[in-house]
Amino acid sequence: MSDAYDLAILGAGSAGYACALRAATLGLSVVMIDEAEVGGTCLHRGCIPTKAWLHAAKVRRTVSKAPSFGIGAELGDTDAEAIRAYADGVVSGLHRGLTGLLKSRGVTVVAARGSLEVSDAGPAIRTPDALHRASAVLVATGAAPATLGFDIDGERILTSNHALRLSTLPETAIVLGGGVIGVEFASLWADLGVSVTLLEATDRLLPGEEPGHVRVLRRELERRGVDIRLGAPATSAEATDGGVRVSAGSDSVSAELLLIAAGRRPVTSGIGLEEAGVTLSPSGHVVVDGNLQTAARNVYAAGDLVPGPQLAHRGYAHGIFVAERIAHNLGRHPRKPTPVRDVDIPRVVYSSPQLASVGVTLEAAGAGADSVDYHLTGNGRAQILRAPGERESGVVRMVRAADGRIVGLHAVGEDVSELIAEGALLVGWHATPEDVAGIIHPHPTLSEALAEANWALAGQPLHIHG
Amino acid sequence: MSDAYDLAILGAGSAGYACALRAATLGLSVVMIDEAEVGGTCLHRGCIPTKAWLHAAKVRRTVSKAPSFGIGAELGDTDAEAIRAYADGVVSGLHRGLTGLLKSRGVTVVAARGSLEVSDAGPAIRTPDALHRASAVLVATGAAPATLGFDIDGERILTSNHALRLSTLPETAIVLGGGVIGVEFASLWADLGVSVTLLEATDRLLPGEEPGHVRVLRRELERRGVDIRLGAPATSAEATDGGVRVSAGSDSVSAELLLIAAGRRPVTSGIGLEEAGVTLSPSGHVVVDGNLQTAARNVYAAGDLVPGPQLAHRGYAHGIFVAERIAHNLGRHPRKPTPVRDVDIPRVVYSSPQLASVGVTLEAAGAGADSVDYHLTGNGRAQILRAPGERESGVVRMVRAADGRIVGLHAVGEDVSELIAEGALLVGWHATPEDVAGIIHPHPTLSEALAEANWALAGQPLHIHG
Repeated sequence: MSDAYDLAILGAGSAGYACALRAATLGLSVVMIDEAEVGGTCLHRGCIPTKAWLHAAKVRRTVSKAPSFGIGAELGDTDAEAIRAYADGVVSGLHRGLTGLLKSRGVTVVAARGSLEVSDAGPAIRTPDALHRASAVLVATGAAPATLGFDIDGERILTSNHALRLSTLPETAIVLGGGVIGVEFASLWADLGVSVTLLEATDRLLPGEEPGHVRVLRRELERRGVDIRLGAPATSAEATDGGVRVSAGSDSVSAELLLIAAGRRPVTSGIGLEEAGVTLSPSGHVVVDGNLQTAARNVYAAGDLVPGPQLAHRGYAHGIFVAERIAHNLGRHPRKPTPVRDVDIPRVVYSSPQLASVGVTLEAAGAGADSVDYHLTGNGRAQILRAPGERESGVVRMVRAADGRIVGLHAVGEDVSELIAEGALLVGWHATPEDVAGIIHPHPTLSEALAEANWALAGQPLHIHG
Repeated sequence: MSDAYDLAILGAGSAGYACALRAATLGLSVVMIDEAEVGGTCLHRGCIPTKAWLHAAKVRRTVSKAPSFGIGAELGDTDAEAIRAYADGVVSGLHRGLTGLLKSRGVTVVAARGSLEVSDAGPAIRTPDALHRASAVLVATGAAPATLGFDIDGERILTSNHALRLSTLPETAIVLGGGVIGVEFASLWADLGVSVTLLEATDRLLPGEEPGHVRVLRRELERRGVDIRLGAPATSAEATDGGVRVSAGSDSVSAELLLIAAGRRPVTSGIGLEEAGVTLSPSGHVVVDGNLQTAARNVYAAGDLVPGPQLAHRGYAHGIFVAERIAHNLGRHPRKPTPVRDVDIPRVVYSSPQLASVGVTLEAAGAGADSVDYHLTGNGRAQILRAPGERESGVVRMVRAADGRIVGLHAVGEDVSELIAEGALLVGWHATPEDVAGIIHPHPTLSEALAEANWALAGQPLHIHG
């Protein structure tokens, strides 16, 4: 048997490493085990490289519109290898920082495949060379792309993992799935000159978001040439001379490549969970109580393993909560932490336009709720960002429940992602529009849209028509 | 005598028109008088067109860096007339919106030169054709560029008014003044290829802002070729064959043109203020009490006339306050409004990098205050925005007073202006870091920098070294 730790963590992604960092700060001894590099999906194959590709796509859009801002510019070729190198540079810089941070906090990182074991002596993680015992274990093995049974070859049929490694871009592509990943790739590929067909099995994109905002996003993608087909469940894909042909209902679509963006499945098999007494749901998620405790004593789960939105910042919040909970149970942290509520977690689709939200939609806010829509045509900053001749389609919606509290903030438009932190504060603090009517927003910023929506909800509309 | 109104407003800029809009919503009858177009300096000659020019400058920077993001691009000529046309388009769209809004709220707008008159019958504004009596008058005539006695000819020696109307850009320019306006023009001209010398009489740029952040900004401007000379008070300027030569102490600098960016003086003379019993300070500002009431009964002042930061959103806040105060006094508004405190007003310098802040600096926060600096090298979004090979210089500083409250938030970096609304909420609500430790910020956004600073101040550092 090896040393016993206060906490052993299986999985070094957002949830796992945030838990490790927080636990170390609280004075716990921590071992974190993952066969892959620290940082997980988000850093290496998810948020970060995808947003880098999206930023390159935005740069290309900016270059092509530069003359309308008075800046002479001629667009040249897009160099996918250079985009990848730039994205890799961002990832490796952040990875270096994270590695140093874990080391400076004294977290023991073990690069090995691990599995959970629970005995009378308590929980532990087994690696080929050792058994890492701990007072508590966190399982945070994350999720991996769903393949829907398609034969992923990484060349014609890809997951997002492969799409981020392309060294040349196709002329045509099919994106299968109208969730966040599918919409982000459709948007960035369209901006990089790829002709994209997006197939979505259901009758809508981005379920759970404000339907009106999703329509704005859809219209903008279509304007840029994305062929969006809803109610088109893909049933098969076969290799052709030039690429791949996909059957979707009565439709048949051909392209150079097919991206399967049909969500991500929790990674919970083959790591000893059920053997150790952890209960899994039929979807393969870990069943937890309100404190992220699994059915196995002193074994917690966090992040994408837990049913709910798959978001890095939810993973961070879960990880921090578990660290504080364990420290509290061990008598090392006076405060019992408050469980994380999914409804308080902001969501962003980093497409162009972006779609950002926190809290509930008007429809979900129940009887007596009301809302205000502030259109960014009246916002000075949005008008400055808009290329001359382009239509402004951005909207901010603030939703108030019958009891007066702000319970939702939803935005669609260029660069609205930075607005949603203020929305999370309003929703998380149960603020009323009247509470915040006196808060001054700088001019000219996009953030003024929140002030305007808020004033209007408080019955004090300023720059808002109607 | 004309109709009597509840409220007559002299000046249709940010403070005046915001007061008109809010008063109209509260059911007051309002007349607003200005010889110039509604919208004032901010819309026509200030914030909006300057930020449009700054955005064009950013577009040029993006084009020149595009290849390092994998996007082939060749930079062509900069077309100042086209930039001006784009800026004019933004201004005219917003002006149309504002004009329609004033009309729909029933505000009477009179395009005429007006002056204040106070008699036993109460206050009024006189225009060439009429006397506009009202229960209360707001004077909101704003400010105009200080000329420091230089002979402004609009061709070689300019104010910002002229600089925004240039149809060709000079190869060389001198900017006189290291305040917000001077720094913004130095930044945008440098990005548009102008060789800029900035002369500042005192020994620092941007007084009142965090000195460390000002140093970051200065270094970045110098890296882009701006020649910054502090302690260099300009004493004279004379025409030369190629433009203008400025003497500043023992220095002499020549360039094609000189921009006088030495602040803005309140417009308070020749409009009957002192005759009507309004007291002016030696600097020409209007002396007001805590409720923006002047020495003349029922005459208020707002915006740049009132000593303090000259900011459009301060004007809005002043205007809203005065509208609510007057409505309250007339028995039309139940709630007595809370006076606007300058310390709660966010400030943004829209240069590259941007400098944004709210509340007080660490130095001004008094004994027992502490602060955390979060460097954007650790922020994923900032790393994505940064061109490969460029140095990251962004920092967010959060300041906490001895009593635990957050009293200042300061940021320097690309695109940090949108972060400061959340800072204004934290400072305005007297939040403690512990209060907001549970608020979740979306990943990857710049707004995470606030969460990180806040966690660190609360003794729970996550992604922060040291």
